[in-house]
Amino acid sequence: MVINNSKIYNPTQHKHLKLGLFGFGCVGQGLYHVLNETHGIKAEIKKICVKSKEKQRILDSAQFTFDKNEILLDEEINVVVELIDDAKAAFEIVKTALQNGKHVVTANKRMIAENLEEIYHLQQQYNRSVLYEGAVCGSIPILRNLEEYYDNDLITSIEGIFNGSTNYILTKVFEEKKSYTEALKGAQDLGFAESDPSLDVEAFDPKFKLTIAIAHTFGVFLKPEEIINIGIQKISPVDLKYARENNLTIKLIARAYKQKGRIFGFVAPQFIPLDHMLAGVRNEYNAVLVEGAFAEKQVFIGKGAGGYPTGSAVLSDISALAYDYRYEYKKFAQREGLPFSNEALVDVVVSFPLGTLITPKDFEIFKGGYQGKDYQYMTGSVKIIKLKALSDLNNVSLILAPELNLAVIDSDKKELLYA
Amino acid sequence: MVINNSKIYNPTQHKHLKLGLFGFGCVGQGLYHVLNETHGIKAEIKKICVKSKEKQRILDSAQFTFDKNEILLDEEINVVVELIDDAKAAFEIVKTALQNGKHVVTANKRMIAENLEEIYHLQQQYNRSVLYEGAVCGSIPILRNLEEYYDNDLITSIEGIFNGSTNYILTKVFEEKKSYTEALKGAQDLGFAESDPSLDVEAFDPKFKLTIAIAHTFGVFLKPEEIINIGIQKISPVDLKYARENNLTIKLIARAYKQKGRIFGFVAPQFIPLDHMLAGVRNEYNAVLVEGAFAEKQVFIGKGAGGYPTGSAVLSDISALAYDYRYEYKKFAQREGLPFSNEALVDVVVSFPLGTLITPKDFEIFKGGYQGKDYQYMTGSVKIIKLKALSDLNNVSLILAPELNLAVIDSDKKELLYA
Repeated sequence: MVINNSKIYNPTQHKHLKLGLFGFGCVGQGLYHVLNETHGIKAEIKKICVKSKEKQRILDSAQFTFDKNEILLDEEINVVVELIDDAKAAFEIVKTALQNGKHVVTANKRMIAENLEEIYHLQQQYNRSVLYEGAVCGSIPILRNLEEYYDNDLITSIEGIFNGSTNYILTKVFEEKKSYTEALKGAQDLGFAESDPSLDVEAFDPKFKLTIAIAHTFGVFLKPEEIINIGIQKISPVDLKYARENNLTIKLIARAYKQKGRIFGFVAPQFIPLDHMLAGVRNEYNAVLVEGAFAEKQVFIGKGAGGYPTGSAVLSDISALAYDYRYEYKKFAQREGLPFSNEALVDVVVSFPLGTLITPKDFEIFKGGYQGKDYQYMTGSVKIIKLKALSDLNNVSLILAPELNLAVIDSDKKELLYA
Repeated sequence: MVINNSKIYNPTQHKHLKLGLFGFGCVGQGLYHVLNETHGIKAEIKKICVKSKEKQRILDSAQFTFDKNEILLDEEINVVVELIDDAKAAFEIVKTALQNGKHVVTANKRMIAENLEEIYHLQQQYNRSVLYEGAVCGSIPILRNLEEYYDNDLITSIEGIFNGSTNYILTKVFEEKKSYTEALKGAQDLGFAESDPSLDVEAFDPKFKLTIAIAHTFGVFLKPEEIINIGIQKISPVDLKYARENNLTIKLIARAYKQKGRIFGFVAPQFIPLDHMLAGVRNEYNAVLVEGAFAEKQVFIGKGAGGYPTGSAVLSDISALAYDYRYEYKKFAQREGLPFSNEALVDVVVSFPLGTLITPKDFEIFKGGYQGKDYQYMTGSVKIIKLKALSDLNNVSLILAPELNLAVIDSDKKELLYA
């Protein structure tokens, strides 16, 4: 058994990386600063391709180009760093870069989620690497850990807070009693929100991340459309009141789990008890809880948004390319892929104005209801597939019950609040 | 730039590992079960060397030997898994194994901590790998993350709960008002405690882990003797009362940080506010908080003790050997090593019987005191180097003040409780 010497640290053996950068927004500028202040990694940005010719830039104009081919056809550039907004254009850049023999680092969750199976095959076909740690939960090294560390553990679930800007909004709404609009504005000002805020608040962004996480956790390539996403935009004053009266908060939870040979997954707001560890994950922080057969519960917490944290994840990927790192997609290669389904039952709390908009018949298992002066709510179990239809009803707000099948740190305290 | 093909997942290229196991206690048996139930890793235990000829074993006696050379001289065995208690004997096994061309996986924190610099050089000399993820915080993949992910981040501190059995004891003492002896017995029954409990309760075990973590975080090889460790054995009813009255709990905290070109580090009990995320890390769970320049605060939580979680970490190391993984000790190789010092100031709360056992002159900066009916306490700043002498005084209990220079998740709330 001979050790591969390229794994022994030797600065002279590490490849010198010439980067071509697409996009120079929040994450691009974060990367630029992180790269400048870091020693120990040999990488330099040769050219930055941007769209707007008008925008003021912090760098000399000679650094920039408006022609993508100045990067894609430059043989000296061996790594394309793709940090633009437009998922379709981004995928074209990725494909061309791979065809032209370049590795790719990207933080574009939508582009990766929508094209993951093809990107997997393109990597094999062109023998080049596409890394995207920055696309899933910002600074948290979750993909690297799923790839490298949990390959021998039988993971049963992965779940958590996958979106920084909605977590920031929910924190401000709950703790500072800010209005939703005010809180969203704050998230945008801080650079946490996507340029199209509906991607965050309607839970598409965390769904893209969950799609990617499912591939690396369970070896299943899904299309984002297969996963149900319920956003936070319909959370009502009634829900906030309900939460406060019951020592709960609300978090937007992404979750996937294995049960009886099938994989289930969805994104939806959930009531979380105040003494639950996820309740303490505040502002733009993200949290990922992995539960496996042997390592049992593992939690990763870190900043899920912002130029520096995401830029740092992007730079970790660039750094990994210096020693030829690539994702192995072991669970897929081992053909562990199980069928994905939306047929599991989940417990929900549905609030709505007085009337018969929702009746006990809408639940697979009806568990109870409460009627107030001008609103009512009902709790019970529904199939995942039905979550969207229910939450799309006018004036109806749907939030998952705090059933605590979440991996909890205080494992002694597992109890159903809705028994 | 050519991708190293050995990194592409291909089960036939992965090495077949023949393991020789030393020790078959809690972790050894955990590993045996984890290995048996895992597919996707080609490793088999060829022989297990144990000490006691009398003990009942769960496996056929043909699997066992009492002669270490049956493993160390067996050319077919390419990985030695060292899981015995005795650090001196363990180091001899590791040295001989490396000399004989075998890789080593171990969970022996004391042996690694006491010999880390030599083990680093032995790996270079014999071109073999020694992996020890299971030695630091059980199931938490902290070494792998420090090695692989944070090499481009400028880490400023690493800290947390590094010992499962004392955390279990403190949890039971606080939450179930158990006596210290009762709680220790519980930890031992569950297999969380070291066979010599003083290693846990006097904080030697977390100190060994901190010694190892400092090498991989800051590139400094220390001897454990250089690091001050204060245990939990002198925590008094007065301290518990003080904690309860001030919405605090007590955790045994290991901490290392970089400040003005020097590295500081120690292990000591600390008062922790109940709404601090470390307060919620209960029972045998461990937590590691890493703070860096760009990724900012990152938290890892997982089980820090027990046969399965540690066995799982050991198996992850074995699995990594199948693709020739080895620690690169990048921070050491990059000569980032800064001097280690015990001259920094830390804030403490000292409780003791009425009298002049401790006076304001014992503090560099005296901050205040309180005198009760039959005890008193004082708070103030002392140098790390003085912690041991103070806490060694008869009838004196010393606990770090909740100064919250801990990386906190609720970063808005940073405030000194002792201002």
